[in-house]
Amino acid sequence: MRIDGKHHRSIWLDPATAELRCIDQTHLPHRVEIRTLDDLPSALEAIRNMRVRGAPLIGATAAHAMALVLARDASDAALENAATELLATRPTAVNLRWAVNRMVEAVGPLDPPLRAARALAEAVAICDEDVAICESIGNHGFDVLKRLAKEKASPGEPLHVLTHCNAGWLATVDWGTALAPIYKAHEAGLKVHVWVDETRPRNQGSSLTAFELLEQGIPHTVIVDNAGGHLMQERRVDCVIVGSDRTTASGDVCNKIGTYLKALAAFDTGVPFYVALPMSTIDWEMRDGIEEIPIEEREPEEVRKVRGLTSQGEIAEVQIFDDRSPVANPAFDVTPARLVTGLVTEYGVCDASEAALSELRRRANIDGVRR
Amino acid sequence: MRIDGKHHRSIWLDPATAELRCIDQTHLPHRVEIRTLDDLPSALEAIRNMRVRGAPLIGATAAHAMALVLARDASDAALENAATELLATRPTAVNLRWAVNRMVEAVGPLDPPLRAARALAEAVAICDEDVAICESIGNHGFDVLKRLAKEKASPGEPLHVLTHCNAGWLATVDWGTALAPIYKAHEAGLKVHVWVDETRPRNQGSSLTAFELLEQGIPHTVIVDNAGGHLMQERRVDCVIVGSDRTTASGDVCNKIGTYLKALAAFDTGVPFYVALPMSTIDWEMRDGIEEIPIEEREPEEVRKVRGLTSQGEIAEVQIFDDRSPVANPAFDVTPARLVTGLVTEYGVCDASEAALSELRRRANIDGVRR
Repeated sequence: MRIDGKHHRSIWLDPATAELRCIDQTHLPHRVEIRTLDDLPSALEAIRNMRVRGAPLIGATAAHAMALVLARDASDAALENAATELLATRPTAVNLRWAVNRMVEAVGPLDPPLRAARALAEAVAICDEDVAICESIGNHGFDVLKRLAKEKASPGEPLHVLTHCNAGWLATVDWGTALAPIYKAHEAGLKVHVWVDETRPRNQGSSLTAFELLEQGIPHTVIVDNAGGHLMQERRVDCVIVGSDRTTASGDVCNKIGTYLKALAAFDTGVPFYVALPMSTIDWEMRDGIEEIPIEEREPEEVRKVRGLTSQGEIAEVQIFDDRSPVANPAFDVTPARLVTGLVTEYGVCDASEAALSELRRRANIDGVRR
Repeated sequence: MRIDGKHHRSIWLDPATAELRCIDQTHLPHRVEIRTLDDLPSALEAIRNMRVRGAPLIGATAAHAMALVLARDASDAALENAATELLATRPTAVNLRWAVNRMVEAVGPLDPPLRAARALAEAVAICDEDVAICESIGNHGFDVLKRLAKEKASPGEPLHVLTHCNAGWLATVDWGTALAPIYKAHEAGLKVHVWVDETRPRNQGSSLTAFELLEQGIPHTVIVDNAGGHLMQERRVDCVIVGSDRTTASGDVCNKIGTYLKALAAFDTGVPFYVALPMSTIDWEMRDGIEEIPIEEREPEEVRKVRGLTSQGEIAEVQIFDDRSPVANPAFDVTPARLVTGLVTEYGVCDASEAALSELRRRANIDGVRR
């Protein structure tokens, strides 16, 4: 999508130097800073410190990181070490595991001298596929939005979509998951307005989603995470769309902390609640998301401090409460399938149920996520 | 309650000078700053800019503000103007109206020369009554906590109570509403641990509730507003207690924005959800909180900016997203009575229902809120 009118991906190979670049998302929306990832440590650091984040982008970054490693040392030991180190960075998103395993399967059987080229090709393929997958999610989700817009009592009014966190193009390679249908709708001239949850603790909603929407010229309003339920009670939200970091085979959705609360409010007020996701976020081995999905606990400083622009225009952090008050900082929660109206995938929209997901998997003629 | 081991009220008359003092809560937890309110404009400013906040404390401040006005000009015009100006400051909390009307009824019938003394006495009485009411809420709520602690599967473990925003002593004259039972429990040696929602946009949870609990030495953990649902799913919350800014005759509860989301999660996970409130927050004329209670919309800057301490130890604000992104900032939401386990009042605990509230009102032998 566009920044300052110019097309970008969130991760790319520089055409001149073949170096791997990404946007450092920790400085957004205040500064667009391009970062070069030139070895495994720099990629690990970028994932851990969320310079790149979002389940699909984490997977794409990990794939490229493995290609970087193998370009220098294509041994089994180097391959194994890179896989282990990358898998340890973020425990919740399943795409990371999916992408790493796909790379290992692609290059592992090859003679070491053949691995580097193949790894790079596979990483590029993962990125290109991600773009196509997200665009397809966008098209299927746009069909949902079109239908909802038609059903509105006041058809001249924009369709009001609430989203939590950032599942936009910055969370993927391009297009996004939850935001892709909104981009498709906007391109097609359907009037959309987005309620953007700021999404504490890291404010990916106000920092990244609002930034994306501003740059694409899409009407939106930033709200605190507490406000969505009230807006739904007041019938000011027509639907909710969020992304997913891991989805169970039964349709439970693990996404950014706070998603569950919005799903409850949507259910209570009769607002449709959709989750947009590539099939690679489905963990076919899990049934009960609340019991089984490991939830990452991140550092207290994310809660204790807030980053922003000072009155002098510098990026700075302020501490909002006392060091002596302890903090808990779970990064994700699980929304049970019963609260989800539908899953929007690259193969179409389906119910959040084991039967519907199995059927979609069959229809897509895929034999399960490669792992 | 205590700051640095010394007892404070949130508003008081200086014994030496008879001046009206309050703690400027906008500087907490970073600086304890005492402010003098010496005329109507200074009181209006303090209420509007939330230097004093919390439904009971707003009422107490308004009562004292009327006494200040009448000390200089006891005319009907001055009385009427003060009432009108004060009522216009904050639309949602009903105690403000209750306190202003009580003052008007107390002094209005008197000859102007008699008004000033009576007004001061009435304001002092409102404050002293508020302390007694909150202590009584604390005792009734403590009974609830004792029972819940007994029912815990692991009795050695502390009782984990989640609270939203600040309904502590800083929201009242002393003791608080939602926190009063916790203070009583702690005094009595019952082990309690409090999950403190930070409560965006103004962070009254991390700034005020965590500050209160630190100063009283009560174990607590600060979480973002998004986290409570997940903690409840994980059975790490034994009950929720919040305050109320207005309660309908049918038991709907209007409180700080985001309360509704916590009530939904508590209901969904089977966690008891209590609301602690003085009877003065009950609006006996309202039945449907969602339809009828006016919700204050506050300024966008509360969402766009966050206040905290810089690395140099100065209080400063940082701007977290672009000026071009619009903001919506509703300050309250309504939790329907069906989600509330019980109401803890100064007259005892009752169901959140019209029948139970009417019965409590009869038992308390009060003839309704004076208005």
